Amino acid sequence: MDSKKLYVVGIGPGSEEDMTIRARNTLEKSDVICGYTVYCDLVKPIFPDKEYISTPMMGEEKRVLLALKRADEGVTVSLICSGDAGVYGMSGLAFELKKDFPEVEVEVIPGVTAALSGAALLGAPLIHDFCLISLSDRLTKIELIEKRLKAAASADMVIVIYNPESKSRKGYLAHACDILMEIIPGERVCGIAKNIARADEESLVTTLEKLKETPADMFSTVFIGNSSTKNIGDMMVTLRGYKSEL
Amino acid sequence: MDSKKLYVVGIGPGSEEDMTIRARNTLEKSDVICGYTVYCDLVKPIFPDKEYISTPMMGEEKRVLLALKRADEGVTVSLICSGDAGVYGMSGLAFELKKDFPEVEVEVIPGVTAALSGAALLGAPLIHDFCLISLSDRLTKIELIEKRLKAAASADMVIVIYNPESKSRKGYLAHACDILMEIIPGERVCGIAKNIARADEESLVTTLEKLKETPADMFSTVFIGNSSTKNIGDMMVTLRGYKSEL
Repeated sequence: MDSKKLYVVGIGPGSEEDMTIRARNTLEKSDVICGYTVYCDLVKPIFPDKEYISTPMMGEEKRVLLALKRADEGVTVSLICSGDAGVYGMSGLAFELKKDFPEVEVEVIPGVTAALSGAALLGAPLIHDFCLISLSDRLTKIELIEKRLKAAASADMVIVIYNPESKSRKGYLAHACDILMEIIPGERVCGIAKNIARADEESLVTTLEKLKETPADMFSTVFIGNSSTKNIGDMMVTLRGYKSEL
Repeated sequence: MDSKKLYVVGIGPGSEEDMTIRARNTLEKSDVICGYTVYCDLVKPIFPDKEYISTPMMGEEKRVLLALKRADEGVTVSLICSGDAGVYGMSGLAFELKKDFPEVEVEVIPGVTAALSGAALLGAPLIHDFCLISLSDRLTKIELIEKRLKAAASADMVIVIYNPESKSRKGYLAHACDILMEIIPGERVCGIAKNIARADEESLVTTLEKLKETPADMFSTVFIGNSSTKNIGDMMVTLRGYKSEL
């Protein structure tokens, strides 16, 4: 008999074409798809005949427990996450909570996280060493977030900011820009990608001081360049230094 | 008439199933596939009828120029990169060099980079803020690499190490472990993923002090946990703190 299986699946930015073939095949063979309401609504048109269990934002633990419970009943369950399953995703909680479901095997299917899909829209902002930092202080102290921003800027790493703002967290991106401008110049090339792979997708290459005034929300991903990042024809491009080899 | 097009395509770890649907469709509609010899050999069995231009390691600039030149002739060209197109990939060089080919439009197709595919193998090591740092000092001064390792460790970020060692760079991973152990304890949970998505794929969850003795090569991706990372049933799991919401 097959083992009881819970898949934690990164669906990428949201369009079917941006899923991996493995993610699409996994959803196809699942009986139940479980996820945050917004992400379930994204995949329902692709897999209309599945059973859906959707829970609202911040119901993460309940959502993972429901998914484990259904998997333990012997049906194949996919717990979906936007972007990747393990980048601010549900895979960690699945491994933590699985101890009460010893027969369920958890398998993670990776996906394209917003740092990668947003980078592709903006040009080539990453290219070399970079950090991902979330500005959400729901589960992380603001002092630690500030410390991480400063550490990354001091070490000249490209910084990708997730969750820059939300309805309840206004002014967080401007605050982060102020902290970064203590270390890096205001003319540093930056970018922002919004609603990646959706109908209202947009991207903008700008500077750190202008970024401070740019509206952002929870569907925005922000890119802070390093000292080698240039604006080349309105694309954000970090140079790696291959020229030196010629 | 369609514009002249160069696609820079992240093919993921190497298996067809781990490509995005968009990456596969893009290769399908291309006339020419251009890339490092090893990556061309990975996709040849999937697309046997394409024209291939493969160049050896370190021929990056020549490779991108060849791809731009063919695109400028009016054929559709895909320049392939392992993992993502913009993470230690070729997309930056394509935007830099495209100035001599004003009619060619460059489009980046993102893919699953080894930080994500390796994380899925190991469990859930990322989950929250993390850094990618390459140990290759071919294009980056070793002092800057060391500074970045220290900055990331001091700010309690998970660290993903790319290019830990190669035939010409022996002992680099052990040196990085020594630098990290100045800041974080030797019992810190770490992991290593090798030959991801290939026949000889393997993964190991270990500790920082044991990692120092672990063989690695250019097909290895190394994960250093943060202070919340646990070994749960031989999986590497970083806790995010959802428990506190119950």
